[in-house]
Amino acid sequence: MAEQKFVYYFGAGDSEGDASMKQLLGGKGANLADMCTLGLPVPPGFTITTEVCDLYYKLDRKYPNGLTEQIEQNIQKLEKATGKTFGHGPNPLLVSVRSGAAVSMPGMMDTVLNLGLNDETLPALIQLTGNERFAWDSYRRFMQMFGDVVLSLEHHDFEHALQSVKDRRGAKLDTDLCVEGLKEVAAEYKKVYEAAGKQFPQDAREQLLAAVTAVFGSWNNPRALKYRALNEIRGLLGTAVNVQTMVFGNMGEDCATGVAFTRDPSTGENRYFYGEYLINAQGEDVVAGIRTPQQITTAGSREWAENNSVPEDRRKADFPSLEEAMPECFQQLDQIRAKLEKHYRDMQDIEFTIEQGTLYMLQTRNGKRTAAAAVKIAVDMVAENLITEKEAVLRVDPKQLDQLLHPTFKKEAEAAAVVLAKGLPASPGAAKGQIVFSAHDAETAALEGRDVILVRIETSPEDIGGMDAAKGILTGRGGMTSHAAVVARGMGKCCVAGCGDVVINYKEKTMRAGDIVLKEGDWISLNGSNGNVYKGSVDTVNPQLTGPFGTIMALADKYRTLGVRTNADTPHDAEVAVQLGAEGIGLCRTEHMFFEGERIVAMRKMILAADEAGRKKALDLLLPVQREDFIGIFKALKGLPATIRFLDPPLHEFVPHDEAGQEEMAKAMGVCAQVIKDKVDSLHEFNPMLGHRGCRLGIFYPEITAMQARAVIEAAYAVPGSKPEIMIPLVGAVKELTHQKQIVLDVYDEIRKEKGADLEYFKIGTMIEVPRGALTADKVAEEADFFSFGTNDLTQMGCGFSRDDAGKFLQRYVELGIYEYDPFQVLDQEGVGELVRIAAEKGRKTKPDLKLGICGEHGGEPSSVKFCHKVGLNYVSCSPYRVPIARLAAAQAAIQYA
Amino acid sequence: MAEQKFVYYFGAGDSEGDASMKQLLGGKGANLADMCTLGLPVPPGFTITTEVCDLYYKLDRKYPNGLTEQIEQNIQKLEKATGKTFGHGPNPLLVSVRSGAAVSMPGMMDTVLNLGLNDETLPALIQLTGNERFAWDSYRRFMQMFGDVVLSLEHHDFEHALQSVKDRRGAKLDTDLCVEGLKEVAAEYKKVYEAAGKQFPQDAREQLLAAVTAVFGSWNNPRALKYRALNEIRGLLGTAVNVQTMVFGNMGEDCATGVAFTRDPSTGENRYFYGEYLINAQGEDVVAGIRTPQQITTAGSREWAENNSVPEDRRKADFPSLEEAMPECFQQLDQIRAKLEKHYRDMQDIEFTIEQGTLYMLQTRNGKRTAAAAVKIAVDMVAENLITEKEAVLRVDPKQLDQLLHPTFKKEAEAAAVVLAKGLPASPGAAKGQIVFSAHDAETAALEGRDVILVRIETSPEDIGGMDAAKGILTGRGGMTSHAAVVARGMGKCCVAGCGDVVINYKEKTMRAGDIVLKEGDWISLNGSNGNVYKGSVDTVNPQLTGPFGTIMALADKYRTLGVRTNADTPHDAEVAVQLGAEGIGLCRTEHMFFEGERIVAMRKMILAADEAGRKKALDLLLPVQREDFIGIFKALKGLPATIRFLDPPLHEFVPHDEAGQEEMAKAMGVCAQVIKDKVDSLHEFNPMLGHRGCRLGIFYPEITAMQARAVIEAAYAVPGSKPEIMIPLVGAVKELTHQKQIVLDVYDEIRKEKGADLEYFKIGTMIEVPRGALTADKVAEEADFFSFGTNDLTQMGCGFSRDDAGKFLQRYVELGIYEYDPFQVLDQEGVGELVRIAAEKGRKTKPDLKLGICGEHGGEPSSVKFCHKVGLNYVSCSPYRVPIARLAAAQAAIQYA
Repeated sequence: MAEQKFVYYFGAGDSEGDASMKQLLGGKGANLADMCTLGLPVPPGFTITTEVCDLYYKLDRKYPNGLTEQIEQNIQKLEKATGKTFGHGPNPLLVSVRSGAAVSMPGMMDTVLNLGLNDETLPALIQLTGNERFAWDSYRRFMQMFGDVVLSLEHHDFEHALQSVKDRRGAKLDTDLCVEGLKEVAAEYKKVYEAAGKQFPQDAREQLLAAVTAVFGSWNNPRALKYRALNEIRGLLGTAVNVQTMVFGNMGEDCATGVAFTRDPSTGENRYFYGEYLINAQGEDVVAGIRTPQQITTAGSREWAENNSVPEDRRKADFPSLEEAMPECFQQLDQIRAKLEKHYRDMQDIEFTIEQGTLYMLQTRNGKRTAAAAVKIAVDMVAENLITEKEAVLRVDPKQLDQLLHPTFKKEAEAAAVVLAKGLPASPGAAKGQIVFSAHDAETAALEGRDVILVRIETSPEDIGGMDAAKGILTGRGGMTSHAAVVARGMGKCCVAGCGDVVINYKEKTMRAGDIVLKEGDWISLNGSNGNVYKGSVDTVNPQLTGPFGTIMALADKYRTLGVRTNADTPHDAEVAVQLGAEGIGLCRTEHMFFEGERIVAMRKMILAADEAGRKKALDLLLPVQREDFIGIFKALKGLPATIRFLDPPLHEFVPHDEAGQEEMAKAMGVCAQVIKDKVDSLHEFNPMLGHRGCRLGIFYPEITAMQARAVIEAAYAVPGSKPEIMIPLVGAVKELTHQKQIVLDVYDEIRKEKGADLEYFKIGTMIEVPRGALTADKVAEEADFFSFGTNDLTQMGCGFSRDDAGKFLQRYVELGIYEYDPFQVLDQEGVGELVRIAAEKGRKTKPDLKLGICGEHGGEPSSVKFCHKVGLNYVSCSPYRVPIARLAAAQAAIQYA
Repeated sequence: MAEQKFVYYFGAGDSEGDASMKQLLGGKGANLADMCTLGLPVPPGFTITTEVCDLYYKLDRKYPNGLTEQIEQNIQKLEKATGKTFGHGPNPLLVSVRSGAAVSMPGMMDTVLNLGLNDETLPALIQLTGNERFAWDSYRRFMQMFGDVVLSLEHHDFEHALQSVKDRRGAKLDTDLCVEGLKEVAAEYKKVYEAAGKQFPQDAREQLLAAVTAVFGSWNNPRALKYRALNEIRGLLGTAVNVQTMVFGNMGEDCATGVAFTRDPSTGENRYFYGEYLINAQGEDVVAGIRTPQQITTAGSREWAENNSVPEDRRKADFPSLEEAMPECFQQLDQIRAKLEKHYRDMQDIEFTIEQGTLYMLQTRNGKRTAAAAVKIAVDMVAENLITEKEAVLRVDPKQLDQLLHPTFKKEAEAAAVVLAKGLPASPGAAKGQIVFSAHDAETAALEGRDVILVRIETSPEDIGGMDAAKGILTGRGGMTSHAAVVARGMGKCCVAGCGDVVINYKEKTMRAGDIVLKEGDWISLNGSNGNVYKGSVDTVNPQLTGPFGTIMALADKYRTLGVRTNADTPHDAEVAVQLGAEGIGLCRTEHMFFEGERIVAMRKMILAADEAGRKKALDLLLPVQREDFIGIFKALKGLPATIRFLDPPLHEFVPHDEAGQEEMAKAMGVCAQVIKDKVDSLHEFNPMLGHRGCRLGIFYPEITAMQARAVIEAAYAVPGSKPEIMIPLVGAVKELTHQKQIVLDVYDEIRKEKGADLEYFKIGTMIEVPRGALTADKVAEEADFFSFGTNDLTQMGCGFSRDDAGKFLQRYVELGIYEYDPFQVLDQEGVGELVRIAAEKGRKTKPDLKLGICGEHGGEPSSVKFCHKVGLNYVSCSPYRVPIARLAAAQAAIQYA
């Protein structure tokens, strides 16, 4: 049996790896090999595979058999290729040892440079470079790095030793130390080793193996673990280790080092070569901020100078571009830039070093970019024939699109703002306004033309008007799917929810965050994309939906097969959503139609009524206004379908729970306050989520269902071409649907007879949101034209989480890895998804053409959208501002699972 | 193709049906045919099948082709057998037309007697019987019955006509009317027909078809529908119609009619032939209560006389037994009695008529009986070699057993008592006591030796002590699975729950039911088996668990394969349950271990603690008392296993919600009341059912889990042979279990090291009560030694019903047939059962020997127990007093599904 290959060599014309081997060699290793094959100037080296890292942990931190032998073979190969010898003079081979996983984790794992220096190779290096100071500095740096990274000696002890020498010699900066000083430092470093009972190894091979071990060990250091958790990086074997011949950008004025992007990572524009470099410096100096980095191109340099008010003569003298300072190297680099983009067919992030006038490439990888840049680059590259349309669609992360759909803060303004508190990023965007503490005040302020932020402990359906009037919403309680969050996302309005850091006092109209107390009228700003609450007014910029954004959306529509509808309750929302590409309404909640203005009075009369006759009388008042609402919606949709959910929330949401409110209601109804109080008490439920709501209301009060049916159907007759789909909520047993459907059909029959004509289009279906409804979907399908999965409630009941309460432990659950994601944000495919799968399968078994959709919050979350595609749904429905995200995710799913 | 057979003839030696054809011929028809075949004296006739009834409705109330022809053929056959002619003299054939479904529905459907009388056959009947009065009385009765039943004329109009003749003639009773008077009545009846525009049909065949139609029509009359709903009679095609030659018990002193049971239906004793008869009477007279019925046997007659203080001479003269009055008929009947019991191998309920000295059998069927009688008869019949042991086990309805396990009211005392209100029969039995309105008062009264009924709007875990101290519990709110109901059933304590008829005022310490206001100290009595609340003290009798009851239980244990455990939280409950046959504890809730006495102080300290150290300090106080609790339970179980569920309820159940309580707690804790109020507020949840409870607590506060684990494990070491099974509640994702299990195992490791020995038996499992847990059971099983299905919560989440709130609409749901039963009482096999099935299948796929049990309230409900057997569970667990029910149901399942 052939021995497993653990080490892959890379070097001019002799690379064993290639770009396709990222999983095995890590991103860095694969691309280094690839660049060699491309004929680019890469210092040769070799990569120890990620499989070794995996084995290292599986073997309880031991190396697999054969690894050291393969490393030795590669060192010999490297010696041959470079003509240098490892650990010995006169031409010593020095190497860097770097981590490199399949997914980039910058700065998270360990690196050792200058490895191979010892008492023998140091003089050789001096001899060779004629630069004694450089050699000694490299040596003492290596000692420190090795001690710190490999032997876990105290970083602090090295710093202390260095400082003591500097103090003794009156040196301010490290660079002030002369050769003698650096020698002293090296001597002091040796003492640090000795004090810890360790020895600095003179043997280069011993150095190397120890460094490799250290890199593998750093794969699971707390910093790396945290980074992977935060960035949701999963499923990797481990890190690879890249051992590469050292090149030096700090050997003199003919040396340099830099990083660059092949296009502007912020805007995506392909204007010029975007990057920075420093002469006579090491890689880390560019980003360390001690020296001002210079621009790669002269055009870039001039722009930089302008922005920073640096006169041209000073710029040219002190901050010349690479183009100006090292024109030949620049030309070579610029050619490489073109070659790399053509080869990788994506914007690249590259690192290079120039050693004594010779350019070396140390890294290339796909560059990180903003959403705007991602869209622009993808669209441009299609135009440039670099990538296909499908590739362009796959290039943009749907989640990122959110950035493009809402106002954002000006970068500098936000950076300068005072963070008051941090809540949940419940609905993205940026908003600023004066604080108000009630929906009513928000509406009044809006009428006065003032921008306000509505600050509430939590919101309820009664607050809708105020939420609409406010520029942004801040709540002290509630999670990502609390009322405030859901409604705000629906409105496309910035919202920070569940901000436990602020104490809200309605009575005194104050909001306290730490020591800062804000009053009504004070300005705050909200970043709904990261949850930050800022003091004062922070400047914002508006989104751009044209240009590349439109192009990428058109491509998405070309390739997706999953429909995308919107959750919208008003003509305005419907219009916005249609503009954003919605193909109809997937969920029109009718609750608000019982709240606004005078309607709540009628609704309350109905609730108070002693009998059916009394209820009908009250409902008669609601019929014409609801009909008008539906007419508005049908008109806004211009022939697109609208799924209208009948009354869902428990009745106690429609009555006031405070004494003052009850007294007011008593006056309005002409009854004693006690009557109201008794009624409210009788409506109290321990678990309203599992209480008397949804179709259970319609079954108890068929007249409500009949009224809503009449309003929808009459509106549909009034607007030719409208496509009503009545949706009965909370069905758990088929007979609930049968019962409600009969009421709707009876009303339809009556109206049909009056009108003397059928509706062209009319469907009745149900929401599958109770687990039992999913489990008995074969039966439910007998009565339904369509199912719409209400994955919010399905998650609540399926997982047993109240979305109003679970916030306080769900975050911990995700931290502990009990759930990979908050199941209210990302559909829990294993559990709740299983119910969706079961229901889809059972439902289609009964009725093969059953239309299936999803209208929970998940309808706008990319991975959930992809799940919906896979499981065979017909459409997803999401809040208007998530429609583009869903369109893109759907297209990606269609391409990925074709 | 042969024509479908719609009509089955029965008569001496010529019956087409038999006892196995109950579904087709109805119970009455099948048994009439069967009795003919047995050679018993049955007036011949024929049965129109239940299929015809079904077709009649399917054909929109029309007869299927061929029916009238088949009826005609059978009439001719009947004429031939009896030598009479239908509708004509001189020997006219009169028939009865009676309903008869496969399941007995006494009095619910229509009957027509004396059919065939008309102007021609009346004189013939007079001629034939020489009894003009009898004939005219039969005629006018037939006219009335036919008009009422078949033509839907007003019953009232006939009564009025009869009364007017009686008034005119000064007759007090119907029997006071002479022949002339009866003729006048017949004439008046004709006018009633005419006034309604109807005619009394002279044609006997026309009469017959109309009567058959009427019987079919009565299958779906409101009375019959209601009866079937109440008695849960489902799945029948319809009623059969029995047309049978009339015999008359009212033709003179040599005629009689009676009903009898072959054994005592009340006690089951086989002492003598138990029944009543009347001389010269029609069947309905025996039960009508106008005349005092006489006993069949002389022994029975003497006992009756004694009980009713009738002297022997008067008894013999006025109330002779059949044995005395018609000794030959009695002998014949007694032989038939023996024959029927031997043939049907069950106690029979028979009807007979003696016409002019000749005995006719009109009906036999299995007799209804009390639970005590059912048990006694089954056991006796095994001893008599009439039935097998398995049959005996199947003969007793497990639900009925409840009657035998609790005190009951004395029949007469209950009949005489004033019903104050009616609630839900939440926990069976009878109880009487003085009203108290708080748990504390109940405990005080119990200490004083007073019997009290605890009356609460609803109960909470804090009331446990008072519930235990009270004789019975009455609540104004909550359903069959409310806290009060569940706890009371667990205690075997009488409870009437959700009694909305009473208004409870804690402040004034009054309870109002309609106009009656009761104060603290007033006596009430509760019937937990039917939900009645009585004014005053109603006398009770105690249950008997020995004798036949013990025998039938032993038989059940012999045949069942499903284990039966109990839900018990205390050593006392465990002992009671073991006495009732429990094979261990399937659910030991540990909540109360945090409540009693000083414990709640420690628990509250834990809740208030700011950090883990503070919580641990408080928990250290709880450890020794919980350990003692578990030692007590293990001792009581004497080596039987105990599944112990770790802390489940949300923390807010442990803190006071009223101001006074909070102030008291503040004092006890040495903090400001505001601190308590803030803490309580912070613990508030909108849907506590779906909130921070179950293992979610243990994951947040691992120290609670660790403390409980230590208490259980140390107790297990302290009681050799104990079998602890730790159950982690509310697991929805396997990692929750992994997390909690690790804590338990760590504690076990620690203790094991201290003790230097392993526990002989130690298991860790989980409750499957979250739908997601069921859906991902394959994964959960990887970490679990056992699953216990918590079907209460599985029903709450699976169906989306809060058991605290659903009462108000679930009843309506059952009435509307949306659910067949209240899913909290009877496991919803289609929905929730599907989750159980999925979880059992997935769990066993991962771990074939996974132990599966159920510990919801359904574990003691017979049909649910049978489902558990079918689905392959290892055991059910139920409250102690339901253990015998579960044992019997399990045995029946094993026999039925063998």
